[in-house]
Amino acid sequence: MAKRGVIIVAGGSGSRMQSSLPKQFMILGGEPVVARTINTFAEALPGAEIVVVLPQEHIALWKNLAARFDVAVHKCVAGGKERFDSVKCGIEALSPEVEYVAIHDGVRALVSKRLIINAMLKIESVEALIPVVDAVDSYRVVEGEESEVISRSKLRIVQTPQLFRADTLRRAYAQEYNPRFTDDATVVEGLGVKITLIEGERSNIKLTTPEDMIYAEAMLRQSEN
Amino acid sequence: MAKRGVIIVAGGSGSRMQSSLPKQFMILGGEPVVARTINTFAEALPGAEIVVVLPQEHIALWKNLAARFDVAVHKCVAGGKERFDSVKCGIEALSPEVEYVAIHDGVRALVSKRLIINAMLKIESVEALIPVVDAVDSYRVVEGEESEVISRSKLRIVQTPQLFRADTLRRAYAQEYNPRFTDDATVVEGLGVKITLIEGERSNIKLTTPEDMIYAEAMLRQSEN
Repeated sequence: MAKRGVIIVAGGSGSRMQSSLPKQFMILGGEPVVARTINTFAEALPGAEIVVVLPQEHIALWKNLAARFDVAVHKCVAGGKERFDSVKCGIEALSPEVEYVAIHDGVRALVSKRLIINAMLKIESVEALIPVVDAVDSYRVVEGEESEVISRSKLRIVQTPQLFRADTLRRAYAQEYNPRFTDDATVVEGLGVKITLIEGERSNIKLTTPEDMIYAEAMLRQSEN
Repeated sequence: MAKRGVIIVAGGSGSRMQSSLPKQFMILGGEPVVARTINTFAEALPGAEIVVVLPQEHIALWKNLAARFDVAVHKCVAGGKERFDSVKCGIEALSPEVEYVAIHDGVRALVSKRLIINAMLKIESVEALIPVVDAVDSYRVVEGEESEVISRSKLRIVQTPQLFRADTLRRAYAQEYNPRFTDDATVVEGLGVKITLIEGERSNIKLTTPEDMIYAEAMLRQSEN
Protein backbone atom coordinates (compact mmCIF):
# COMPACT_ATOMS: atom_id res chain seq x y z
CA MET A 1 0.00 0.00 0.00
CA ALA A 2 1.17 3.53 -0.76
CA LYS A 3 2.78 5.28 2.19
CA ARG A 4 0.76 8.26 3.35
CA GLY A 5 1.66 11.38 5.27
CA VAL A 6 -0.44 13.94 7.13
CA ILE A 7 0.73 17.44 8.05
CA ILE A 8 -1.41 19.21 10.62
CA VAL A 9 -0.66 22.90 10.82
CA ALA A 10 -1.54 24.38 14.22
CA GLY A 11 0.02 27.79 14.24
CA GLY A 12 -2.63 30.36 15.22
CA SER A 13 -2.17 32.77 18.09
CA GLY A 14 -5.78 32.75 19.30
CA SER A 15 -6.27 36.53 19.19
CA ARG A 16 -9.68 36.19 17.53
CA MET A 17 -10.82 33.70 20.18
CA GLN A 18 -10.64 36.28 23.03
CA SER A 19 -8.71 33.67 24.97
CA SER A 20 -5.17 33.47 26.20
CA LEU A 21 -5.02 29.78 25.26
CA PRO A 22 -4.31 29.41 21.51
CA LYS A 23 -7.47 28.05 19.87
CA GLN A 24 -5.86 24.78 18.76
CA PHE A 25 -5.46 23.87 22.45
CA MET A 26 -8.97 24.76 23.63
CA ILE A 27 -11.01 21.87 24.99
CA LEU A 28 -13.68 20.58 22.63
CA GLY A 29 -15.78 17.58 23.63
CA GLY A 30 -13.33 16.73 26.40
CA GLU A 31 -10.04 16.97 24.49
CA PRO A 32 -7.85 19.69 22.96
CA VAL A 33 -8.96 20.76 19.47
CA VAL A 34 -5.75 19.61 17.81
CA ALA A 35 -5.88 16.24 19.64
CA ARG A 36 -9.28 15.59 18.08
CA THR A 37 -7.92 16.52 14.67
CA ILE A 38 -4.92 14.19 15.05
CA ASN A 39 -7.10 11.32 16.26
CA THR A 40 -9.56 11.66 13.38
CA PHE A 41 -6.73 11.40 10.84
CA ALA A 42 -5.14 8.49 12.70
CA GLU A 43 -8.45 6.58 12.65
CA ALA A 44 -9.18 7.39 9.01
CA LEU A 45 -5.67 6.52 7.77
CA PRO A 46 -4.14 3.69 9.83
CA GLY A 47 -0.39 3.56 9.31
CA ALA A 48 -0.09 7.12 8.02
CA GLU A 49 2.76 9.31 9.32
CA ILE A 50 1.33 12.30 11.19
CA VAL A 51 3.38 15.45 11.67
CA VAL A 52 2.03 18.34 13.73
CA VAL A 53 3.59 21.74 13.11
CA LEU A 54 3.43 24.19 16.01
CA PRO A 55 5.05 27.54 16.79
CA GLN A 56 8.31 26.90 18.69
CA GLU A 57 6.89 28.64 21.78
CA HIS A 58 3.94 26.23 21.98
CA ILE A 59 5.76 22.93 21.70
CA ALA A 60 6.38 22.45 25.42
CA LEU A 61 2.77 23.41 26.21
CA TRP A 62 1.49 20.92 23.64
CA LYS A 63 3.70 18.07 24.87
CA ASN A 64 2.45 18.70 28.37
CA LEU A 65 -1.19 18.69 27.22
CA ALA A 66 -0.76 15.69 24.90
CA ALA A 67 0.61 13.60 27.78
CA ARG A 68 -2.65 14.10 29.65
CA PHE A 69 -4.99 13.05 26.83
CA ASP A 70 -5.32 10.10 24.50
CA VAL A 71 -3.53 11.34 21.40
CA ALA A 72 -2.51 9.11 18.47
CA VAL A 73 1.20 8.75 17.67
CA HIS A 74 2.56 11.82 15.88
CA LYS A 75 5.76 13.73 15.35
CA CYS A 76 5.86 17.33 16.55
CA VAL A 77 7.99 19.96 14.78
CA ALA A 78 8.46 23.72 15.11
CA GLY A 79 7.07 25.89 12.31
CA GLY A 80 8.37 29.08 10.70
CA LYS A 81 7.34 32.67 10.17
CA GLU A 82 4.68 32.25 7.47
CA ARG A 83 2.33 29.32 6.98
CA PHE A 84 4.48 28.53 3.91
CA ASP A 85 7.53 28.08 6.15
CA SER A 86 5.60 25.93 8.62
CA VAL A 87 4.33 23.55 5.93
CA LYS A 88 7.87 23.31 4.59
CA CYS A 89 9.06 22.20 8.05
CA GLY A 90 6.27 19.62 8.06
CA ILE A 91 7.26 18.25 4.64
CA GLU A 92 10.90 17.93 5.74
CA ALA A 93 9.78 15.91 8.77
CA LEU A 94 8.05 13.27 6.61
CA SER A 95 9.88 10.10 5.54
CA PRO A 96 11.16 10.19 1.95
CA GLU A 97 9.05 7.15 1.05
CA VAL A 98 5.75 8.99 1.67
CA GLU A 99 3.87 9.12 -1.66
CA TYR A 100 0.71 11.08 -0.82
CA VAL A 101 0.34 13.93 1.64
CA ALA A 102 -2.71 15.51 3.25
CA ILE A 103 -2.22 18.99 4.73
CA HIS A 104 -4.84 20.08 7.22
CA ASP A 105 -5.62 23.08 9.43
CA GLY A 106 -5.29 21.94 13.05
CA VAL A 107 -8.38 23.94 14.03
CA ARG A 108 -10.65 22.15 11.53
CA ALA A 109 -11.38 19.52 14.16
CA LEU A 110 -14.85 18.66 12.82
CA VAL A 111 -13.54 17.11 9.59
CA SER A 112 -15.05 13.65 9.06
CA LYS A 113 -13.16 10.40 8.54
CA ARG A 114 -15.26 9.92 5.42
CA LEU A 115 -13.95 13.11 3.81
CA ILE A 116 -10.35 12.17 4.66
CA ILE A 117 -10.71 8.63 3.28
CA ASN A 118 -12.46 9.76 0.09
CA ALA A 119 -9.82 12.42 -0.55
CA MET A 120 -6.98 9.92 0.03
CA LEU A 121 -8.49 7.49 -2.49
CA LYS A 122 -9.04 10.22 -5.07
CA ILE A 123 -5.48 11.65 -4.84
CA GLU A 124 -4.15 8.41 -6.36
CA SER A 125 -5.61 9.54 -9.68
CA VAL A 126 -4.88 13.31 -9.64
CA GLU A 127 -1.93 15.52 -8.67
CA ALA A 128 -3.60 17.91 -6.25
CA LEU A 129 -7.06 18.17 -4.76
CA ILE A 130 -8.93 20.40 -2.34
CA PRO A 131 -12.39 20.16 -0.77
CA VAL A 132 -14.75 23.05 -1.45
CA VAL A 133 -18.32 23.89 -0.51
CA ASP A 134 -20.84 26.16 -2.21
CA ALA A 135 -21.15 29.70 -0.93
CA VAL A 136 -24.65 30.26 0.50
CA ASP A 137 -24.31 33.95 1.34
CA SER A 138 -24.07 36.97 -0.94
CA TYR A 139 -20.65 38.56 -1.32
CA ARG A 140 -19.22 41.93 -2.26
CA VAL A 141 -15.73 42.87 -3.31
CA VAL A 142 -14.59 46.14 -1.74
CA GLU A 143 -12.19 48.49 -3.48
CA GLY A 144 -11.47 51.56 -1.34
CA GLU A 145 -14.79 53.36 -0.75
CA GLU A 146 -16.62 51.33 -3.40
CA SER A 147 -17.95 47.79 -3.39
CA GLU A 148 -19.59 45.55 -5.95
CA VAL A 149 -21.46 42.27 -5.93
CA ILE A 150 -19.71 39.09 -7.02
CA SER A 151 -21.73 36.19 -8.42
CA ARG A 152 -22.22 33.58 -5.72
CA SER A 153 -22.86 30.77 -8.18
CA LYS A 154 -19.19 30.75 -9.21
CA LEU A 155 -17.80 31.14 -5.71
CA ARG A 156 -16.55 28.17 -3.68
CA ILE A 157 -15.32 28.15 -0.07
CA VAL A 158 -11.98 26.35 0.18
CA GLN A 159 -11.32 23.90 3.03
CA THR A 160 -8.67 21.43 4.07
CA PRO A 161 -7.41 18.68 3.97
CA GLN A 162 -5.64 19.59 0.75
CA LEU A 163 -3.99 16.52 -0.79
CA PHE A 164 -1.01 16.23 -3.08
CA ARG A 165 1.33 13.73 -4.62
CA ALA A 166 4.39 13.99 -2.40
CA ASP A 167 6.82 14.62 -5.27
CA THR A 168 4.66 17.47 -6.57
CA LEU A 169 4.41 18.94 -3.08
CA ARG A 170 8.18 18.79 -2.53
CA ARG A 171 8.84 20.53 -5.85
CA ALA A 172 6.21 23.15 -5.03
CA TYR A 173 7.72 23.98 -1.64
CA ALA A 174 11.17 24.28 -3.20
CA GLN A 175 9.89 27.49 -4.84
CA GLU A 176 10.68 30.84 -3.31
CA TYR A 177 7.95 32.25 -1.07
CA ASN A 178 5.41 34.45 -2.82
CA PRO A 179 2.69 36.44 -1.01
CA ARG A 180 0.20 34.95 -3.50
CA PHE A 181 0.68 31.62 -1.70
CA THR A 182 -2.40 31.78 0.54
CA ASP A 183 -2.81 28.02 0.97
CA ASP A 184 -1.06 24.84 -0.17
CA ALA A 185 -3.04 24.64 -3.39
CA THR A 186 -1.79 28.07 -4.50
CA VAL A 187 1.80 26.97 -3.83
CA VAL A 188 1.32 23.88 -6.00
CA GLU A 189 -0.42 26.00 -8.65
CA GLY A 190 2.83 27.95 -8.83
CA LEU A 191 4.21 24.91 -10.70
CA GLY A 192 1.35 25.06 -13.20
CA VAL A 193 -0.36 22.02 -11.66
CA LYS A 194 -4.15 21.82 -12.02
CA ILE A 195 -6.09 21.69 -8.74
CA THR A 196 -9.00 19.23 -8.62
CA LEU A 197 -12.00 20.29 -6.53
CA ILE A 198 -13.94 17.72 -4.49
CA GLU A 199 -17.05 18.19 -2.35
CA GLY A 200 -16.19 19.35 1.18
CA GLU A 201 -18.40 19.48 4.27
CA ARG A 202 -20.38 22.44 5.56
CA SER A 203 -19.51 21.48 9.13
CA ASN A 204 -15.75 21.35 8.43
CA ILE A 205 -15.18 24.91 9.62
CA LYS A 206 -12.09 26.61 10.99
CA LEU A 207 -12.66 27.12 14.71
CA THR A 208 -11.69 30.78 15.03
CA THR A 209 -14.26 32.47 17.28
CA PRO A 210 -16.09 31.65 20.53
CA GLU A 211 -19.27 31.17 18.43
CA ASP A 212 -17.46 28.54 16.38
CA MET A 213 -16.64 26.62 19.56
CA ILE A 214 -20.32 26.66 20.59
CA TYR A 215 -21.26 25.34 17.16
CA ALA A 216 -18.58 22.65 17.37
CA GLU A 217 -19.73 21.48 20.81
CA ALA A 218 -23.30 21.28 19.53
CA MET A 219 -22.24 19.31 16.45
CA LEU A 220 -20.31 16.82 18.58
CA ARG A 221 -23.21 16.34 20.98
CA GLN A 222 -25.51 15.68 18.03
CA SER A 223 -23.18 13.19 16.36
CA GLU A 224 -22.83 11.30 19.65
CA ASN A 225 -26.61 10.96 20.02
CA MET B 1 -40.17 60.62 15.09
CA ALA B 2 -39.68 59.26 11.60
CA LYS B 3 -42.06 56.46 10.65
CA ARG B 4 -40.26 53.16 10.12
CA GLY B 5 -41.15 50.04 8.20
CA VAL B 6 -39.82 46.50 8.29
CA ILE B 7 -40.26 43.94 5.51
CA ILE B 8 -39.49 40.36 6.52
CA VAL B 9 -39.16 38.08 3.53
CA ALA B 10 -39.91 34.45 4.38
CA GLY B 11 -40.20 32.72 1.07
CA GLY B 12 -37.95 29.65 1.13
CA SER B 13 -39.24 26.18 0.33
CA GLY B 14 -37.08 24.31 2.83
CA SER B 15 -35.55 21.86 0.35
CA ARG B 16 -32.04 22.32 1.75
CA MET B 17 -33.30 21.66 5.29
CA GLN B 18 -34.29 18.04 4.54
CA SER B 19 -37.58 18.83 6.18
CA SER B 20 -41.11 19.05 4.88
CA LEU B 21 -41.74 22.11 7.06
CA PRO B 22 -40.34 25.24 5.37
CA LYS B 23 -37.34 26.39 7.41
CA GLN B 24 -38.91 29.71 8.40
CA PHE B 25 -41.50 27.74 10.39
CA MET B 26 -39.17 25.35 12.19
CA ILE B 27 -39.11 25.67 15.97
CA LEU B 28 -36.07 27.44 17.38
CA GLY B 29 -35.81 28.04 21.12
CA GLY B 30 -39.50 27.27 21.54
CA GLU B 31 -40.97 29.40 18.74
CA PRO B 32 -41.09 29.37 14.95
CA VAL B 33 -38.01 30.91 13.31
CA VAL B 34 -39.95 33.73 11.66
CA ALA B 35 -41.79 34.51 14.92
CA ARG B 36 -38.44 35.10 16.62
CA THR B 37 -37.37 37.35 13.75
CA ILE B 38 -40.59 39.39 13.94
CA ASN B 39 -40.35 39.74 17.72
CA THR B 40 -36.73 40.91 17.61
CA PHE B 41 -37.62 43.69 15.17
CA ALA B 42 -40.72 44.65 17.16
CA GLU B 43 -38.64 44.98 20.34
CA ALA B 44 -35.83 46.88 18.61
CA LEU B 45 -38.13 49.30 16.78
CA PRO B 46 -41.26 50.03 18.85
CA GLY B 47 -43.98 51.54 16.65
CA ALA B 48 -42.50 50.29 13.38
CA GLU B 49 -44.83 48.75 10.79
CA ILE B 50 -43.91 45.12 10.21
CA VAL B 51 -44.89 43.33 7.01
CA VAL B 52 -44.16 39.62 6.55
CA VAL B 53 -44.09 38.35 2.97
CA LEU B 54 -44.88 34.65 2.53
CA PRO B 55 -45.63 32.42 -0.43
CA GLN B 56 -49.43 32.35 -0.98
CA GLU B 57 -49.53 28.63 -0.14
CA HIS B 58 -47.98 29.19 3.31
CA ILE B 59 -50.20 32.00 4.55
CA ALA B 60 -52.86 29.78 6.11
CA LEU B 61 -50.19 27.62 7.75
CA TRP B 62 -48.46 30.68 9.18
CA LYS B 63 -51.69 32.25 10.51
CA ASN B 64 -52.45 28.96 12.23
CA LEU B 65 -48.94 28.79 13.76
CA ALA B 66 -48.86 32.48 14.71
CA ALA B 67 -52.10 32.12 16.66
CA ARG B 68 -50.44 29.54 18.90
CA PHE B 69 -47.33 31.60 19.76
CA ASP B 70 -46.63 35.07 21.09
CA VAL B 71 -45.97 37.00 17.90
CA ALA B 72 -45.79 40.81 17.71
CA VAL B 73 -48.37 42.65 15.57
CA HIS B 74 -47.59 42.36 11.88
CA LYS B 75 -49.27 42.43 8.48
CA CYS B 76 -49.00 39.31 6.37
CA VAL B 77 -48.96 39.50 2.55
CA ALA B 78 -48.45 37.01 -0.28
CA GLY B 79 -45.22 37.26 -2.27
CA GLY B 80 -44.47 36.75 -5.95
CA LYS B 81 -42.38 34.56 -8.18
CA GLU B 82 -38.91 36.02 -7.55
CA ARG B 83 -37.60 37.59 -4.36
CA PHE B 84 -37.82 40.90 -6.27
CA ASP B 85 -41.58 40.43 -6.69
CA SER B 86 -42.00 39.48 -3.04
CA VAL B 87 -40.20 42.57 -1.76
CA LYS B 88 -42.32 44.68 -4.11
CA CYS B 89 -45.47 43.22 -2.50
CA GLY B 90 -43.99 44.07 0.89
CA ILE B 91 -43.28 47.68 -0.11
CA GLU B 92 -46.84 48.10 -1.42
CA ALA B 93 -48.19 46.89 1.93
CA LEU B 94 -46.39 49.65 3.87
CA SER B 95 -48.13 52.94 4.68
CA PRO B 96 -47.15 55.81 2.40
CA GLU B 97 -45.84 57.81 5.38
CA VAL B 98 -43.07 55.29 6.14
CA GLU B 99 -39.71 57.10 5.68
CA TYR B 100 -37.14 54.38 6.36
CA VAL B 101 -37.40 50.68 5.55
CA ALA B 102 -35.43 47.67 6.79
CA ILE B 103 -35.67 44.52 4.64
CA HIS B 104 -34.67 41.30 6.35
CA ASP B 105 -34.44 37.59 5.57
CA GLY B 106 -37.01 35.79 7.73
CA VAL B 107 -34.56 32.97 8.42
CA ARG B 108 -31.90 35.28 9.91
CA ALA B 109 -33.51 34.85 13.30
CA LEU B 110 -30.30 35.42 15.28
CA VAL B 111 -30.00 39.09 14.30
CA SER B 112 -29.49 41.25 17.40
CA LYS B 113 -31.59 44.20 18.48
CA ARG B 114 -28.37 46.18 18.66
CA LEU B 115 -27.61 45.68 14.95
CA ILE B 116 -31.18 46.66 14.02
CA ILE B 117 -31.12 49.81 16.18
CA ASN B 118 -27.67 50.90 14.98
CA ALA B 119 -28.64 50.41 11.34
CA MET B 120 -31.90 52.36 11.81
CA LEU B 121 -30.01 55.29 13.33
CA LYS B 122 -27.39 55.27 10.58
CA ILE B 123 -29.90 55.19 7.70
CA GLU B 124 -31.02 58.71 8.64
CA SER B 125 -27.72 59.99 7.23
CA VAL B 126 -27.25 57.76 4.13
CA GLU B 127 -29.49 56.48 1.33
CA ALA B 128 -28.85 52.75 1.56
CA LEU B 129 -26.88 50.54 3.91
CA ILE B 130 -26.11 46.85 4.36
CA PRO B 131 -24.33 44.92 7.12
CA VAL B 132 -21.27 42.93 6.05
CA VAL B 133 -18.74 40.71 7.81
CA ASP B 134 -15.19 39.79 6.86
CA ALA B 135 -14.65 36.52 5.04
CA VAL B 136 -12.54 34.16 7.17
CA ASP B 137 -12.24 31.31 4.68
CA SER B 138 -10.34 31.09 1.40
CA TYR B 139 -12.37 31.31 -1.79
CA ARG B 140 -12.06 30.23 -5.39
CA VAL B 141 -13.97 31.37 -8.43
CA VAL B 142 -14.81 28.47 -10.75
CA GLU B 143 -15.10 28.89 -14.50
CA GLY B 144 -15.99 25.60 -16.19
CA GLU B 145 -13.21 23.10 -15.40
CA GLU B 146 -10.87 25.78 -14.07
CA SER B 147 -10.81 27.67 -10.79
CA GLU B 148 -8.74 30.48 -9.35
CA VAL B 149 -8.19 32.02 -5.95
CA ILE B 150 -9.84 35.32 -5.07
CA SER B 151 -8.28 37.62 -2.49
CA ARG B 152 -10.10 37.19 0.81
CA SER B 153 -9.03 40.59 2.12
CA LYS B 154 -11.35 42.37 -0.31
CA LEU B 155 -14.27 39.99 0.11
CA ARG B 156 -17.22 40.75 2.42
CA ILE B 157 -20.16 38.52 3.28
CA VAL B 158 -23.43 40.42 2.84
CA GLN B 159 -26.20 40.10 5.43
CA THR B 160 -29.56 41.65 6.18
CA PRO B 161 -31.26 43.83 7.42
CA GLN B 162 -30.62 46.07 4.42
CA LEU B 163 -31.94 49.58 5.07
CA PHE B 164 -33.09 52.24 2.67
CA ARG B 165 -34.80 55.61 2.52
CA ALA B 166 -38.34 54.66 1.58
CA ASP B 167 -38.50 57.01 -1.41
CA THR B 168 -35.28 55.54 -2.83
CA LEU B 169 -36.60 52.02 -2.27
CA ARG B 170 -39.91 52.76 -4.01
CA ARG B 171 -38.12 54.23 -7.03
CA ALA B 172 -35.76 51.24 -7.12
CA TYR B 173 -38.58 48.70 -7.12
CA ALA B 174 -40.36 50.59 -9.90
CA GLN B 175 -37.55 49.39 -12.20
CA GLU B 176 -38.08 46.38 -14.41
CA TYR B 177 -36.76 43.09 -12.95
CA ASN B 178 -33.19 42.24 -13.88
CA PRO B 179 -31.47 38.91 -13.04
CA ARG B 180 -28.57 40.97 -11.65
CA PHE B 181 -30.87 41.93 -8.76
CA THR B 182 -29.64 39.36 -6.22
CA ASP B 183 -30.60 41.33 -3.11
CA ASP B 184 -32.23 44.65 -2.27
CA ALA B 185 -28.95 46.56 -2.40
CA THR B 186 -28.38 45.51 -6.01
CA VAL B 187 -31.88 46.72 -6.93
CA VAL B 188 -31.17 50.13 -5.36
CA GLU B 189 -27.75 50.22 -7.05
CA GLY B 190 -29.67 50.00 -10.31
CA LEU B 191 -30.57 53.67 -9.67
CA GLY B 192 -26.90 54.59 -9.24
CA VAL B 193 -27.25 54.92 -5.47
CA LYS B 194 -24.14 54.26 -3.37
CA ILE B 195 -24.44 51.43 -0.83
CA THR B 196 -22.91 52.11 2.59
CA LEU B 197 -21.42 49.10 4.38
CA ILE B 198 -21.75 48.72 8.15
CA GLU B 199 -20.35 46.03 10.43
CA GLY B 200 -22.63 42.99 10.62
CA GLU B 201 -22.57 40.06 13.04
CA ARG B 202 -20.88 36.69 12.57
CA SER B 203 -23.81 34.97 14.27
CA ASN B 204 -26.42 36.61 11.99
CA ILE B 205 -26.51 33.65 9.61
CA LYS B 206 -29.22 32.44 7.26
CA LEU B 207 -30.67 29.27 8.78
CA THR B 208 -30.58 26.99 5.76
CA THR B 209 -29.32 23.57 6.90
CA PRO B 210 -29.90 21.26 9.88
CA GLU B 211 -26.37 22.18 11.10
CA ASP B 212 -27.40 25.83 11.13
CA MET B 213 -30.35 24.97 13.39
CA ILE B 214 -28.00 23.21 15.83
CA TYR B 215 -25.75 26.27 15.85
CA ALA B 216 -28.75 28.56 16.39
CA GLU B 217 -30.05 26.51 19.32
CA ALA B 218 -26.58 26.57 20.91
CA MET B 219 -26.31 30.34 20.43
CA LEU B 220 -29.69 30.92 22.05
CA ARG B 221 -28.87 28.71 25.02
CA GLN B 222 -25.64 30.61 25.51
CA SER B 223 -27.25 34.05 25.30
CA GLU B 224 -29.88 32.98 27.84
CA ASN B 225 -27.22 31.90 30.36
